[in-house]
Amino acid sequence: MARIRLGMVGGGNDAFIGAVHRIASRIDDRFELVAGALSSTPEKAIASGQALGLDPDRTYANFTDMAKREARLKNGIEAVAIVTPNHVHYPASREFLKRNIHVICDKPLTSTMADAKKLVAAVEKSDALFVLTHNYTGYPMMRQARQMVADGDLGKIRLVQVEYPQDWLTEAAEDDGVKQAEWRTDPARSGAGGCVGDIGTHAYNLAGFVTGLRLEELAADLHSFVPGRLLDDNVNVMLRYEGGARGMLWSSQVAPGNENGLKLRVYGEKGGIEWTQADPNYLWFTPFGEPKRLITRGGAGSNAASQKGTRIPPGHPEGYLEGFANIYSEAADAIEAARAGKSSDALYPTVEDGLDGMKFIQACVASSKRNSAWLKL
Amino acid sequence: MARIRLGMVGGGNDAFIGAVHRIASRIDDRFELVAGALSSTPEKAIASGQALGLDPDRTYANFTDMAKREARLKNGIEAVAIVTPNHVHYPASREFLKRNIHVICDKPLTSTMADAKKLVAAVEKSDALFVLTHNYTGYPMMRQARQMVADGDLGKIRLVQVEYPQDWLTEAAEDDGVKQAEWRTDPARSGAGGCVGDIGTHAYNLAGFVTGLRLEELAADLHSFVPGRLLDDNVNVMLRYEGGARGMLWSSQVAPGNENGLKLRVYGEKGGIEWTQADPNYLWFTPFGEPKRLITRGGAGSNAASQKGTRIPPGHPEGYLEGFANIYSEAADAIEAARAGKSSDALYPTVEDGLDGMKFIQACVASSKRNSAWLKL
Amino acid sequence: MARIRLGMVGGGNDAFIGAVHRIASRIDDRFELVAGALSSTPEKAIASGQALGLDPDRTYANFTDMAKREARLKNGIEAVAIVTPNHVHYPASREFLKRNIHVICDKPLTSTMADAKKLVAAVEKSDALFVLTHNYTGYPMMRQARQMVADGDLGKIRLVQVEYPQDWLTEAAEDDGVKQAEWRTDPARSGAGGCVGDIGTHAYNLAGFVTGLRLEELAADLHSFVPGRLLDDNVNVMLRYEGGARGMLWSSQVAPGNENGLKLRVYGEKGGIEWTQADPNYLWFTPFGEPKRLITRGGAGSNAASQKGTRIPPGHPEGYLEGFANIYSEAADAIEAARAGKSSDALYPTVEDGLDGMKFIQACVASSKRNSAWLKL
Amino acid sequence: MARIRLGMVGGGNDAFIGAVHRIASRIDDRFELVAGALSSTPEKAIASGQALGLDPDRTYANFTDMAKREARLKNGIEAVAIVTPNHVHYPASREFLKRNIHVICDKPLTSTMADAKKLVAAVEKSDALFVLTHNYTGYPMMRQARQMVADGDLGKIRLVQVEYPQDWLTEAAEDDGVKQAEWRTDPARSGAGGCVGDIGTHAYNLAGFVTGLRLEELAADLHSFVPGRLLDDNVNVMLRYEGGARGMLWSSQVAPGNENGLKLRVYGEKGGIEWTQADPNYLWFTPFGEPKRLITRGGAGSNAASQKGTRIPPGHPEGYLEGFANIYSEAADAIEAARAGKSSDALYPTVEDGLDGMKFIQACVASSKRNSAWLKL
Repeated sequence: MARIRLGMVGGGNDAFIGAVHRIASRIDDRFELVAGALSSTPEKAIASGQALGLDPDRTYANFTDMAKREARLKNGIEAVAIVTPNHVHYPASREFLKRNIHVICDKPLTSTMADAKKLVAAVEKSDALFVLTHNYTGYPMMRQARQMVADGDLGKIRLVQVEYPQDWLTEAAEDDGVKQAEWRTDPARSGAGGCVGDIGTHAYNLAGFVTGLRLEELAADLHSFVPGRLLDDNVNVMLRYEGGARGMLWSSQVAPGNENGLKLRVYGEKGGIEWTQADPNYLWFTPFGEPKRLITRGGAGSNAASQKGTRIPPGHPEGYLEGFANIYSEAADAIEAARAGKSSDALYPTVEDGLDGMKFIQACVASSKRNSAWLKL
Repeated sequence: MARIRLGMVGGGNDAFIGAVHRIASRIDDRFELVAGALSSTPEKAIASGQALGLDPDRTYANFTDMAKREARLKNGIEAVAIVTPNHVHYPASREFLKRNIHVICDKPLTSTMADAKKLVAAVEKSDALFVLTHNYTGYPMMRQARQMVADGDLGKIRLVQVEYPQDWLTEAAEDDGVKQAEWRTDPARSGAGGCVGDIGTHAYNLAGFVTGLRLEELAADLHSFVPGRLLDDNVNVMLRYEGGARGMLWSSQVAPGNENGLKLRVYGEKGGIEWTQADPNYLWFTPFGEPKRLITRGGAGSNAASQKGTRIPPGHPEGYLEGFANIYSEAADAIEAARAGKSSDALYPTVEDGLDGMKFIQACVASSKRNSAWLKL
Repeated sequence: MARIRLGMVGGGNDAFIGAVHRIASRIDDRFELVAGALSSTPEKAIASGQALGLDPDRTYANFTDMAKREARLKNGIEAVAIVTPNHVHYPASREFLKRNIHVICDKPLTSTMADAKKLVAAVEKSDALFVLTHNYTGYPMMRQARQMVADGDLGKIRLVQVEYPQDWLTEAAEDDGVKQAEWRTDPARSGAGGCVGDIGTHAYNLAGFVTGLRLEELAADLHSFVPGRLLDDNVNVMLRYEGGARGMLWSSQVAPGNENGLKLRVYGEKGGIEWTQADPNYLWFTPFGEPKRLITRGGAGSNAASQKGTRIPPGHPEGYLEGFANIYSEAADAIEAARAGKSSDALYPTVEDGLDGMKFIQACVASSKRNSAWLKL
Repeated sequence: MARIRLGMVGGGNDAFIGAVHRIASRIDDRFELVAGALSSTPEKAIASGQALGLDPDRTYANFTDMAKREARLKNGIEAVAIVTPNHVHYPASREFLKRNIHVICDKPLTSTMADAKKLVAAVEKSDALFVLTHNYTGYPMMRQARQMVADGDLGKIRLVQVEYPQDWLTEAAEDDGVKQAEWRTDPARSGAGGCVGDIGTHAYNLAGFVTGLRLEELAADLHSFVPGRLLDDNVNVMLRYEGGARGMLWSSQVAPGNENGLKLRVYGEKGGIEWTQADPNYLWFTPFGEPKRLITRGGAGSNAASQKGTRIPPGHPEGYLEGFANIYSEAADAIEAARAGKSSDALYPTVEDGLDGMKFIQACVASSKRNSAWLKL
């Protein structure tokens, strides 16, 4: 099968997430990066393209040019990865979607709810696919967990405890020239949510992915601890799911000692599971009244859902990049099916998941402003 | 120094917490159990006294008789441990306090706020001491943490994350003749809080002990998952402390895989700490920007506060009973000082801590009824 | 049942292990310390007795006086705890054994093989019991493991990996006035083995306790790293057990970062177990081809053997002192049976275990001198 | 920089390690697979080439044809990855080396010492580089550790404890058609060592990589537990290093519960380190007398040596494939330098390391046959 021709918007030199997308796209060898509009600064876009070995002819100064020209090329890109700050997600996606180029877009969906809705509409109108990289759903043990919940191994779900603490914004990194910190704390580029948009959405999305439950309402208490910071850096939320499950979500960027502490715990009438992203190859499972079991990626007790996203034997740890690559591989499955005019059951986060995440951010911000009133999504 | 003569109310055969108090009182050899009203069932009281080797003459059918007679004996008890269901705490304490016999009482303070206030008044009137066994504050590493916070090692506190999940009430154990479950799920004996009173108060108390912060308001979402259960079995709370710290508290008795999962995390402007009760000899400490450090009881990095409650070298684990014994030893310090007509700086939970815990329970129940409105304590 | 009247030899102020024995004897309330020859220095013996609240009349200047007089008293001691440096174990035990006073003695058995054999003979001649406090066999999860091996849960045993690293002798603590270090590194008081006698024997004993296997031969490489140290401070041994199992034993007192790292792993044809003393309430069990299971003291999956030595529910950690207390409780079972003229099936380390440990030390030292030749025990 | 044109020998469909090499070569985008002799079965070689999207013209039936033709092509391969069973390593390497095509070869070096020496000679004669994929040396935290030892952070090294247990050969998988098991237990294809050659060499190599110490002599006890198995499946070794350090090495393939349990601990006069491959992003470091510190890949406390092999921020786990990719990236550094006629300080395992590993295997087998006599390497 020929590799999928991929373009990239954003992700120039020094950007963290662009490099991640490129590695993730390569791991299973189903994409080939052939074009890019890698920076909003033209010189940087060109230098970055050169550094990546792109054909200078396909290194673009902006995404509009890229979309227009690639759409006309005989072997133009079939898909584009959009890895810019949030406020660019919608305008960039639109240009490619309307030319029926598949979009693989970083999260959160957009910086505003208005953009989010327009993006949903753009996806509906397009023949192209839209894949949102809520990458943590790509971890094999999260797929294992999702299948176990669906299979009823935990019984009816009662409790969801999800947390995502980090510490890198404990001090005002945005004032020290840390680019990653600058745009993430800037409402114009990030949207109304700071920590809640950057990582709270990941936590929210992952909980929904695993449990299959829809959130009914939430009560949030957002706060910004660092003086002068415009967006929240700590997020406390209580959750009420359809069917009666309750939960809590905590995300923070000011919790020293937490590098990237995403952790999910789900408890049902018959059992519980626990997973932590920093050691992603393990899933704890306790059937009520029995000893805890440690299920490992690829090991005894692992199910088909986790084995699908597994490359190497148990005990040989896969990590963040392999989890991310699973999203790309699912996207490749879907794109290849589309090439063949078929549908697929590829499992990846969609524009609807993205809209749902935007509603979550919006509800958190609104609830917090209303002193933590319970709000529907 | 002669051992302190101790009596016990409750704690007959098969009671869990009575045996714990007795072992805790023996570990440092400063108390001697000499009298008891060990059960509300007279025959069981007698049989239990016999099993413990008590003088039959000092095995009482009820606590009132015991208080009256022991107060008149030349070598009557100097202190009494009250280890009954919650609704007996006040009436039993009252009888001993008014005879100036020191009281060491299990938590929560009482089953009703009215009783709690009367108990505070009774303590104020008495010359005797009142010690509440919020035993988790007796763990050396919690004393280490408290001292570190007080010393400013974490900087100004921003975040408190405390949780206390268990799983033993996942099914309706109270319908299966489990005595521990019966009274804990009975409002008449437990009070208005179920899980929140039984273990939520421990979590709340411990967070306050370590941080030294006063809670200003809370928003709670209590729920009972097991059909027919009258009291909450899951507790979600958001916290706002004086001075601006925020937090979350989760306690549950329906989370399969959690035996007794008390865990405290505190984050400040300069660093963070993490501790879990199941492995109590370790305290993680991360000064922001430095590697995590594992401070061990009695080991390098341990401070005077933790060393005081330490009996054996690091690597030789102390556990729950030793932590509990530290409360008894602090009580012994205070009682011996009182014998000598002196005051002491013994560190133990007081009746005010107990009242504060009752306010916490009350506020949680009330907030939950008002759809999680923020309420002052 | 009346408490067993206990005396103590050694264990004066500042001694670590004497205090441990006293607490262990109290935890289950079956012993009462009533006499002592607590130090070889008479003034210290008296001061220590006073500090412990012993009757001055029963505070002795030496163990011979104590044995003679207590044997004549109407309510003289029924048992004695011997907690001196190793070279005193035999002469002290002898005095009590010949007067039919039960002996509870610290390990290793003696400082010389000659003494060990004489002690075995003395026990054989006596009507009294001899209990050796290889305390790590008292941990509930080690009893769980022993029962599981006996039940065939692991199949035929193939591999034993046991290690016991510490770090407290990384530098020459014996030159800095650390009393614990002084006698442990002195051949006259410790015997021919340093680290191997102090903790290597614990590891060896525990492996035999759990597996029930007899060691056939060993090849050892002992070394002393700290300049001027007369006894080994690091012990590497390869093991061959009867029936074909192989193993390795490592013990060290110069391994920085290891406080008291006793760890046992046993693997058979059908499964494996792993246990670490620092977190003693957990036992990992992997049936081959299935997920690992975490068996907890008192929790799901725990068997009768571990439950017998359990006081409090799972999740409430018991520690070193409770494990030690289990040896005392087994001793109490045996002594009470002896009082009644009955035999018992109490499970405690015997003088034969002690002799076996001495043979292990001797064989390690001899093998090491012969450049690690395989030697029979 | 143009990608390095890579060929592959072995690694056809279903081979584990071939896929690993291909992913590892792609992660940092510095190689491009363009040719292959992917199986010793011609039909399988062709099918595998097709599956990988290779040009049919460059899919060869055997490595000799491939070496000959690629050497003549204008854009023939610059490097070849050899991922066959051990006995093919030498003959395949020879064909490429003599045509000055760089070789990246799996470990152990060869199946016989005679081949190993011939391979060393072949490398010496060639202008091409030879890289041996002792991939565990590619983990960033092992590079961190190596640098720390070199910097003296641990002081003079005293102890090396290295272990590598697995469990996949607990039963006779080689009789059940498991291809991986078949050749690994066949002396004709594996050589004289079974477990010792397959994974014992990894452990040995890693210990030498980190400590920089040369092994002087060893005493080994190899055993085969599974009836009918021709090669060892459990390896116990005692180690004596130059300069006086001692150590133990355990590797096993019959230890249930161990998936891939490579673990290294090194202790010196000033401190100790501990690392486990299953959680590779963490390195424990204890300066003697201070609390343990958890150094994380990319996090606080990480040094330049580990940061060089780091792609993503701390808390985003990298795994086995990224560690393996670091070997490929070092190889790329060296090959690019060679292109430019320069030397490089790229850090990768060499043919001498491979020869050293062969000597280790040979010495283990010989020592074991001589009843564990100490043998020089």
